[in-house]
Amino acid sequence: MSGFKYSNLVHADSIGTDIFSLIEQLFPICRSITGDGVRATLKHIREHIPLDVHEVPTGTQIYDWTIPREWNINDAYIKNQKGEKVVDFHNSNLHVVGYSIPVQKKMSLDELKEHVFSIPENPEWIPYRTSYYNESWGFCISHRQLMSMEDGIYDVLIDSSLEDGTLTYGEYVLPGEIEDEILLSAHICHPSLANDNLSGIALLTHLAKHLQGLKHKYSYRFIFAPGTIGSLTWLARNEQHALSRVKHGLVVSCVGDAGGPTYKRSRRGSAEIDLAIEHVLKHACEQSILDDFSPYGYDERQYCSPGFNLPVGLFERSKYGEFPQYHTSADNLEFISVEHLSESYGIISRLIDVLENNDTYVNKNPKGEPQLGKRGLYNAIGGDTQAAQKIMAMLWTLNLSDGEHSLLDISKRADIPFELIFSAAQLLRENGLLKKANNKISSCSAP
Amino acid sequence: MSGFKYSNLVHADSIGTDIFSLIEQLFPICRSITGDGVRATLKHIREHIPLDVHEVPTGTQIYDWTIPREWNINDAYIKNQKGEKVVDFHNSNLHVVGYSIPVQKKMSLDELKEHVFSIPENPEWIPYRTSYYNESWGFCISHRQLMSMEDGIYDVLIDSSLEDGTLTYGEYVLPGEIEDEILLSAHICHPSLANDNLSGIALLTHLAKHLQGLKHKYSYRFIFAPGTIGSLTWLARNEQHALSRVKHGLVVSCVGDAGGPTYKRSRRGSAEIDLAIEHVLKHACEQSILDDFSPYGYDERQYCSPGFNLPVGLFERSKYGEFPQYHTSADNLEFISVEHLSESYGIISRLIDVLENNDTYVNKNPKGEPQLGKRGLYNAIGGDTQAAQKIMAMLWTLNLSDGEHSLLDISKRADIPFELIFSAAQLLRENGLLKKANNKISSCSAP
Amino acid sequence: MSGFKYSNLVHADSIGTDIFSLIEQLFPICRSITGDGVRATLKHIREHIPLDVHEVPTGTQIYDWTIPREWNINDAYIKNQKGEKVVDFHNSNLHVVGYSIPVQKKMSLDELKEHVFSIPENPEWIPYRTSYYNESWGFCISHRQLMSMEDGIYDVLIDSSLEDGTLTYGEYVLPGEIEDEILLSAHICHPSLANDNLSGIALLTHLAKHLQGLKHKYSYRFIFAPGTIGSLTWLARNEQHALSRVKHGLVVSCVGDAGGPTYKRSRRGSAEIDLAIEHVLKHACEQSILDDFSPYGYDERQYCSPGFNLPVGLFERSKYGEFPQYHTSADNLEFISVEHLSESYGIISRLIDVLENNDTYVNKNPKGEPQLGKRGLYNAIGGDTQAAQKIMAMLWTLNLSDGEHSLLDISKRADIPFELIFSAAQLLRENGLLKKANNKISSCSAP
Repeated sequence: MSGFKYSNLVHADSIGTDIFSLIEQLFPICRSITGDGVRATLKHIREHIPLDVHEVPTGTQIYDWTIPREWNINDAYIKNQKGEKVVDFHNSNLHVVGYSIPVQKKMSLDELKEHVFSIPENPEWIPYRTSYYNESWGFCISHRQLMSMEDGIYDVLIDSSLEDGTLTYGEYVLPGEIEDEILLSAHICHPSLANDNLSGIALLTHLAKHLQGLKHKYSYRFIFAPGTIGSLTWLARNEQHALSRVKHGLVVSCVGDAGGPTYKRSRRGSAEIDLAIEHVLKHACEQSILDDFSPYGYDERQYCSPGFNLPVGLFERSKYGEFPQYHTSADNLEFISVEHLSESYGIISRLIDVLENNDTYVNKNPKGEPQLGKRGLYNAIGGDTQAAQKIMAMLWTLNLSDGEHSLLDISKRADIPFELIFSAAQLLRENGLLKKANNKISSCSAP
Repeated sequence: MSGFKYSNLVHADSIGTDIFSLIEQLFPICRSITGDGVRATLKHIREHIPLDVHEVPTGTQIYDWTIPREWNINDAYIKNQKGEKVVDFHNSNLHVVGYSIPVQKKMSLDELKEHVFSIPENPEWIPYRTSYYNESWGFCISHRQLMSMEDGIYDVLIDSSLEDGTLTYGEYVLPGEIEDEILLSAHICHPSLANDNLSGIALLTHLAKHLQGLKHKYSYRFIFAPGTIGSLTWLARNEQHALSRVKHGLVVSCVGDAGGPTYKRSRRGSAEIDLAIEHVLKHACEQSILDDFSPYGYDERQYCSPGFNLPVGLFERSKYGEFPQYHTSADNLEFISVEHLSESYGIISRLIDVLENNDTYVNKNPKGEPQLGKRGLYNAIGGDTQAAQKIMAMLWTLNLSDGEHSLLDISKRADIPFELIFSAAQLLRENGLLKKANNKISSCSAP
Repeated sequence: MSGFKYSNLVHADSIGTDIFSLIEQLFPICRSITGDGVRATLKHIREHIPLDVHEVPTGTQIYDWTIPREWNINDAYIKNQKGEKVVDFHNSNLHVVGYSIPVQKKMSLDELKEHVFSIPENPEWIPYRTSYYNESWGFCISHRQLMSMEDGIYDVLIDSSLEDGTLTYGEYVLPGEIEDEILLSAHICHPSLANDNLSGIALLTHLAKHLQGLKHKYSYRFIFAPGTIGSLTWLARNEQHALSRVKHGLVVSCVGDAGGPTYKRSRRGSAEIDLAIEHVLKHACEQSILDDFSPYGYDERQYCSPGFNLPVGLFERSKYGEFPQYHTSADNLEFISVEHLSESYGIISRLIDVLENNDTYVNKNPKGEPQLGKRGLYNAIGGDTQAAQKIMAMLWTLNLSDGEHSLLDISKRADIPFELIFSAAQLLRENGLLKKANNKISSCSAP
């Protein structure tokens, strides 16, 4: 019997605080799809788990893409005629458009404005912008500040570099009893944005840390990589030996705010992970959102491209692009909370619990019901308020354990939480009434 | 063409009265899962149909179960200090917990109360309780009476016996044109309870009696057996030669009250009987309830266990366990009515009519419509109010009789009552436009 | 790439007027299932398209039917005692029941009334009646007139003939790149009724006329034939060599009024044409009606009989039989409009556009997303209001072009209009990102 239990994963009351602390450490770092900010981020993660860090040279062909030059930045500012820094990169790394080329120039306000972005609807917020594959430069500032800038000549500096280097990503594989893998992936290319996606990075780091100490059936693979080019790089380098092992996968992003929770299904639509998380959300949350796959979003776009079609979904709280703080300076440490990080961790832990234990059994006394009373199984259940549901869990498990229904199938058909069906199966197995199916047939994992 | 018609089965206006009379005869008998009460019940049934009575010895192994000792009871009472019988088994056989061991003892009220059951919410009603597989004893009384009992020493007697004997069940097989069977089953282990299940016993007895005189395609097997252990015993003794013949089956219980009607589907969910009764209820009843299978209930639990998975549903009016009179003295002759017994009989008769006549035909002129006018088939239909529906019944039957749709499939697709589709098929066949499919393919009977 | 585009078919602003003009020309002609009225109708159509006219002799066996004698009529009237024509065929050809045998007789009002039909609910309207296969005669008049007729002797004349001759139908085949055909069919047997079915006749005539000048993949077959016996005759004469080529088909009737639009599915229910028109109606119309097949209606009854089971649906605006003007003199030129004829033409043109271009493609870079930016495909789209939807159209087309989804499948899944998905596919193909699937698999065209 698997030793994996949900309760093992969530034993730490402090889990939300632990995740939040790591986010606080990572928040000031200026990340992009390449550069030292990514390396610094992975170094922090390595304080918790023994991550492998991969460096892939500029110019490497990755399917239809090419690893770009490495971008780094030391300083950036806009000075007014008095020599005052009215915009300073050291105040917020959002001020500089990601991948801006170096600039040192004096220019009029009108000329400058062609390179400045703001959000008129939210005049206090700084937007987040990038220009990875088109050479350009720009500043992002609050609309209030933009409106207050007076005519005159401004002194503009972006002390950045775009040079041959490497793209950096982190990977951590935790071997299990079997080679089949659960893939967990977070993008690490966003600068000082808390929900998107320091929340996903920090949650997965602590999940990996806790899983290290547990006995688990599946092998786990954690990917911390820049969006798009990073996941594509991992896919290209692991296509031969790793992809066929990925049985379930989840992209984790925006897991610290108060919205959702939201699950976006894999392209397959009814992969085991799709059904498992639907079950978890139904029983664990008062409300939740289930969306079908669409080819826009985070790295599930790449994992679910037709040439891979991996069973990878996306777990978020608020949906990317649909909350006003998205890609602005308002996605900060105040936008997320210990409580919601902890809840997100609980949901993913419950999901892992279902995946780890979703076995298929065979009723050893399939002709008629076995006599539960003589084995004390009615008494075993005791008089608690769940007693009737626990008896129903036993009867359903016996009735549907014909080798064609997994425990998750039974939970869904019976409309009983997975943990009760799993407990019933354990009790029945201890009493010699159930055995594992020889060939696991999980009807819900069909592609 | 089959000679079986619904109208033959319900020719007797008195059918409700006949069923009610048999219930009245059976009501006073004290039944349990074994013993003379069961034998007396079967003897009454034998006055109507030539039932085979089977006796299976105590200790016989039945799958995971063992035939228990036979229980009989002569007398039981509770006397107060004045020697008055405050509780007397001869007033109601519900007063004694079924399978109570013999007791003769004086005891205080407090001691006695540990063995007394009542229903505080319905203080005038006596509950019905059993303890088949745990040795114990007890009395069931009204809560009003329990509250009125004064402190003191009570003289308690249960003159019962638990001895090696037999388990008794009845079986009646009515051969038809083919060996394929329709199984009809009622439990006979409840004492003086009218709806649960004297109503089922008496309805099936009269159904069998009427079927004797009719030409029918299917063979019919009626089982009158104690709940659980009785149906399991029949299954164990007939596994080799009878189970494969069961093409449709129905457990009949609680068919005399004003609720429902309710049908609980077989485990297969869309067996032919599931679709047939759904059709009958839709067209015959203003309202009805359709439930999916669950592994709790009456003997369909055993017939639908995974090792058998027979296409057996449950027909009731009010659902077991959901009406307040369930398993109390209020489930008496006043709780049921001639009218509802008659209506239940009509529904089951219509169901049999569909099953008997649900053949698959082939349109002999499948290319374009045949010219109905030149055969007088438009005229044949006359100007009655159903004329348009009768023409549609012909057109649908011609259009879908491609060897892949049974008449029930056509009824469902056309949303026209089965009897009209069946009549249309007869008319078309008489006019040489339809023939029976060589290999009956009933698309809706797939497992 | 197919040269067929919706915009080519609807280039003529005057299309509604053109269709209406043809209806006006055809309106006065007295048509029936045989006779000179049918020939005159086909002659008018030949002024637009080079129709083949087929004549099939009386007595020819057509499956279960026989070509009837040919019916023609010169004159008919009812004169009162003063010699006044109170009913005159030359005022309305609806006045005579179709296929009335010749009559010349004096008779009392009571005797006459047995042969007169009116509509009490709509006392100003003349009904339309026929009696093709029963020898009889009759007049149809307004109820108001019937009520005003005084007792007396009436002089009744029907100068008709029923003689051996032929049944006449028209057929026009427009070869395409492939032999697979789209069948378009209208019945031509109704006299002065504008919506039913001069609207269908005239719309298909002009559709054929426009298609002549276009490059198209499919071959098109237009059938103008009398109802039932006409389509059966075509089916019988083309069973060997043409039926297997019909990949999609549409019966067109009642397309000029303000109701609907309505589509009645083929018997298959989810043939490609069923899915294609459902998509067109969803995106082109504010509201529309989708009905499942039933074996009553127009010639789709014959095309969809079980021996043929062709993928042929019915397109109408108001449903036959459900608008009060149906089969009365109120189905006249005022009941239809240029606007609604034009809209119907647009819907059918869009349908043809979908069918012509519903190919299946394969993403040539299926592993991950291709880099659209470096090809200028994000820029290509420009900043119009549809920009976001156009990007989504590209992403969906790339994601689902795995050889198993046609463009229509992708449109449906993405909930994006077919023309945007088709444009995206063109753009991607021009950029070398997509190729046609070797073996066209159109998952939605399965029978």
